Amino acid sequence: MIEHNDAHWMNLALEEARKAAFLGEVPVGAVLVHHNTLLAQAHNTRETTQQISGHAEIKVLEKAGEGIQSWRLPETTLYVTVEPCLMCVGAILQARVRRVVFGVREPKSGSLVSNLQLLKIPNTPKVEITEGILSSECRSLMKSFFGVQRES
Amino acid sequence: MIEHNDAHWMNLALEEARKAAFLGEVPVGAVLVHHNTLLAQAHNTRETTQQISGHAEIKVLEKAGEGIQSWRLPETTLYVTVEPCLMCVGAILQARVRRVVFGVREPKSGSLVSNLQLLKIPNTPKVEITEGILSSECRSLMKSFFGVQRES
Repeated sequence: MIEHNDAHWMNLALEEARKAAFLGEVPVGAVLVHHNTLLAQAHNTRETTQQISGHAEIKVLEKAGEGIQSWRLPETTLYVTVEPCLMCVGAILQARVRRVVFGVREPKSGSLVSNLQLLKIPNTPKVEITEGILSSECRSLMKSFFGVQRES
Repeated sequence: MIEHNDAHWMNLALEEARKAAFLGEVPVGAVLVHHNTLLAQAHNTRETTQQISGHAEIKVLEKAGEGIQSWRLPETTLYVTVEPCLMCVGAILQARVRRVVFGVREPKSGSLVSNLQLLKIPNTPKVEITEGILSSECRSLMKSFFGVQRES
């Protein structure tokens, strides 16, 4: 279910995604919000840092955890421009994120509704999912990035 | 299948796990090896850093990635004292780790053979699994840690 301010926070995630694109990273950005207050914002840095944990979702959970000195982040909403992968869904579940809002599906690695549907596995914590917020902006950013990649 | 030197590398992972226990962390240690050469060793730091990504497996992949400047770590073997969780299996698969060797199963969060069996999902990359290396040492470290936790 769409909530008030979803487009506002997704716009901030898109700003982060554009920073990633500028750095030559797959353009994914994320924002973590607690009761409509910004906790952290981050973008994909995997190529820059050459670290497996460089995905935007892990980075935003790390920054928020550092900020409030807690790896448990209950009652938060994570906005991310692209559907999270297996690793990131694992982190989201363990951090007790309440709700995940994403822009576009990731057919190959998306692990919420696409390639894997991890929330359907028994005994998995409940996480509310909303998809399709600013989807055309999120999709065009990904498409233009991979278009450039193919040409180069 | 058990390989030559498995116990040697698991002993190093156990040393890391003991460092974690000393810091009051859940005692899990990990080592990453490439063709029998040590790439990195790490332990659980989640409580110390309050970061969701503080698990030993993520830390060892990060350190190795930094060392060789590549988040892709093919032809490597990851030794870890306890069966990896969902987040860590996601990272292991994306890093293209060839083989995972673990000491003891984790009934609640283990995602290779226990709570989830992620490798059985279609289209999942192939990863060789060996379990039970130095299992009694790995188990007694976990048991004594959680025994102390319950008493305090």
